Amino acid sequence: MPSADASRKSQEKPREIMDAAEDFAKERYGVSSMIQSQEKPDRVLVRVSNLTVKKADEVVWVRARVHTSRAKGKQCFLVLRQQQFNVQALVAVGDHASKQMVKFAANINKESIVDVEGVVRKVNQKIGSCTQQDVELHVQKIYVISLAEPRLPLQLDDAVRPEVEGEEEGRATVNQDTRLDNRVIDLRTSTSQAVFRLQSGICHLFRETLINKGFVEIQTPKIISAASEGGANVFTVSYFKNNAYLAQSPQLYKQMCICADFEKVFCIGPVFRAEDSNTHRHLTEFVGLDIEMAFSYHYHEVVEEIADTLVQIFKGLQERFQTEIQTVNKQFPCEPFKFLEPTLRLEYCEALAMLREAGIEMGDEEDLSTPNEKLLGRLVKEKKQSNSYDMFMRGEEILSGAQRIHDPQLLTERALHHGIDLEKIKAYIDSFRFGAPPHAGGGIGLERVTMLFLGLHNVRQTSMFPRDPKRLTP
Amino acid sequence: MPSADASRKSQEKPREIMDAAEDFAKERYGVSSMIQSQEKPDRVLVRVSNLTVKKADEVVWVRARVHTSRAKGKQCFLVLRQQQFNVQALVAVGDHASKQMVKFAANINKESIVDVEGVVRKVNQKIGSCTQQDVELHVQKIYVISLAEPRLPLQLDDAVRPEVEGEEEGRATVNQDTRLDNRVIDLRTSTSQAVFRLQSGICHLFRETLINKGFVEIQTPKIISAASEGGANVFTVSYFKNNAYLAQSPQLYKQMCICADFEKVFCIGPVFRAEDSNTHRHLTEFVGLDIEMAFSYHYHEVVEEIADTLVQIFKGLQERFQTEIQTVNKQFPCEPFKFLEPTLRLEYCEALAMLREAGIEMGDEEDLSTPNEKLLGRLVKEKKQSNSYDMFMRGEEILSGAQRIHDPQLLTERALHHGIDLEKIKAYIDSFRFGAPPHAGGGIGLERVTMLFLGLHNVRQTSMFPRDPKRLTP
Repeated sequence: MPSADASRKSQEKPREIMDAAEDFAKERYGVSSMIQSQEKPDRVLVRVSNLTVKKADEVVWVRARVHTSRAKGKQCFLVLRQQQFNVQALVAVGDHASKQMVKFAANINKESIVDVEGVVRKVNQKIGSCTQQDVELHVQKIYVISLAEPRLPLQLDDAVRPEVEGEEEGRATVNQDTRLDNRVIDLRTSTSQAVFRLQSGICHLFRETLINKGFVEIQTPKIISAASEGGANVFTVSYFKNNAYLAQSPQLYKQMCICADFEKVFCIGPVFRAEDSNTHRHLTEFVGLDIEMAFSYHYHEVVEEIADTLVQIFKGLQERFQTEIQTVNKQFPCEPFKFLEPTLRLEYCEALAMLREAGIEMGDEEDLSTPNEKLLGRLVKEKKQSNSYDMFMRGEEILSGAQRIHDPQLLTERALHHGIDLEKIKAYIDSFRFGAPPHAGGGIGLERVTMLFLGLHNVRQTSMFPRDPKRLTP
Repeated sequence: MPSADASRKSQEKPREIMDAAEDFAKERYGVSSMIQSQEKPDRVLVRVSNLTVKKADEVVWVRARVHTSRAKGKQCFLVLRQQQFNVQALVAVGDHASKQMVKFAANINKESIVDVEGVVRKVNQKIGSCTQQDVELHVQKIYVISLAEPRLPLQLDDAVRPEVEGEEEGRATVNQDTRLDNRVIDLRTSTSQAVFRLQSGICHLFRETLINKGFVEIQTPKIISAASEGGANVFTVSYFKNNAYLAQSPQLYKQMCICADFEKVFCIGPVFRAEDSNTHRHLTEFVGLDIEMAFSYHYHEVVEEIADTLVQIFKGLQERFQTEIQTVNKQFPCEPFKFLEPTLRLEYCEALAMLREAGIEMGDEEDLSTPNEKLLGRLVKEKKQSNSYDMFMRGEEILSGAQRIHDPQLLTERALHHGIDLEKIKAYIDSFRFGAPPHAGGGIGLERVTMLFLGLHNVRQTSMFPRDPKRLTP
């Protein structure tokens, strides 16, 4: 039936011509219907980070957010962002784009997600404002995949502006509550992306190091039957018809695993502190990276393993996350984090001698002049001659650990001395009745270590969804 | 003052001689004082697993538990255990040991920890009851480092006995509550050691695979402000002057991370279900291994990533944990776990066709004959034609996932439809208002996957310190 076909075509022709006259590019842009997995188009999406001169003159598809848009006569410049990378895109009236299409592109709300087909073009002058400085994308098609609402609760450019710059130039920055109230947007900034990729790296390096050292990862319960660590600052949970509590640390369970012959264990998990502290370094829920280890004769064996683990983490971060460190530094300038390998270790008496040599007598003075002296001062003041140890980053304590009591009799005496109800820690004390090796351990807070490594000033910057006495959302 | 010295010596001599006459070996055994890190002896402790013919005739120090002891005339045979390894040790009256020393060794309570100095001797006949079959240790010194109480609440040999053997031969096995009440001892068995080393491996393989695929590890809060998933089965927490809840899954936060441009995320952490179920597969607290991922056009992209992750875990376990698998199998025999690479994937209609071909009409029948038919039957019965997916191991569901709604309008409609208070999930819904990519995900339970991989029958066997409606300790 070719004639019928021909006839249909001829009937349609006038309409096509008419539409084309209105907007020859109308199929080349628009708002896509919601992606509901109805089709699998044969289309490869190229990463923004891969848009370099190597791809010059290629036609590519990219999915990214509209970071900014700026219309200028018959042209519209977009900055398309994908995580920490961005590229300039140009929609210009011409063979591929109508003036309606340029207008459409210019009106796409910021933060909307778009699919763009374009030709990668080398540029003569570097585009300083983008990570992809040597190319731009000449847009041939643009479809909105997910439309953002027009008013953003915060501007990403404001959210990455260094405070100093904001103050000096009178430009907007974003305060912490606004950030946290709109965390999903704040997490999109290059700074946040870098902070949390690095944080993921800390966990990875911690585990990688310990698994190589022969440690076993354990999972300890968070719901416990008794407020075992004294009862203060513990959250209560309704547990069917009774009460239970949220674990303030995995310590008792780590120790029980040592009594159960696992010898060297670690765990990563939430710890809960019902402390009504609203400071820059307290959270009611944070992530503990914990270690416990049996030793042969001296707890220094454990101190060495922990210290080396920290060194391996710091080395790994500096090797693998240099880009992230520099990104965070742009917004929050600070001294690079320094450490020694092996770590600097001071015994109580050495610390005391150093202070005396520096002419500092231990008295009641609260403020010593430099951070190092402050650190030593605290060491000397707070520590007794005991089998315990503190570890510090940038002069702030990150770990406090000790040889544990592995004798049930002594443990019982100490518990009574501290007024702890023995019945409540029966299972724990019983763990030591059937042979227990000497052991020691410690734990670090993920948020605090991330903060100190990057030289940030508030643990809320390094917790994705922080919890404090006043904040439970988002 | 040499004469004074000489005089002291001569005074002491008679006493020394007398003591030696009583027990020439008395310095060679005894109960050590508690190890309190007072000294660092220049002594290397050799691992029991390293006691092989390579070390024949060497004098070594070993720290291990007394697994069993058996006196026989002037000799005492000990089995010394260190984690899953053990070796036979012999204390015999002779040059190095007195009869008092043999008696002392024979009377050390089982499970005590001892330091032993001995000569490694090749044996002519393999010692079938030990892992170190080709050598035994001829003890020269033996000191108790940590003494176990005399009565053990359970015997380790009973705790590893296969049920069948116990029943047929009328020998003791240990019931589950006794095991869990005395978990620290139960965890010392070769079976438990193997189970939890393998479980540590599952976590490691999960993360290793996902980090290689470009995923970012996230930490999601466990204390949340609203019982967001309907309100049933949620634990309530007293949060200062208000109430809060324990997260029943990290899903909402995983999704928010997708809206925050992390694209591919995973997390490992506790999830809490206040479900009053006392079955073999329910716990009130378990460890969730969760994935969430933005996709381009079809949720099958996510299904493929998840399925491949599971395959990599299974392959890794079979490659790296063969010893552990075989150890568990000795006590709990089962068919080796089998899987396909890539995994077998059935679409709804394919599953239906296979059932029909097998002559099975879908009706109300509850019990189909084989596990595979059972599986297909459940698939066909329970699943609608939707963008969701289930994954199975040994015919049991381990993962249920779906494409999520990424449109705030549709999300609002669905929430209203399910009677969810919009105010309570405001932060969640708001996450989708500023551009959200299509995404999907899912999660597996660590205890359940460990159980099914090893062919065990109760998740309490694969949770170190399980929590259920009736158990909150140890």
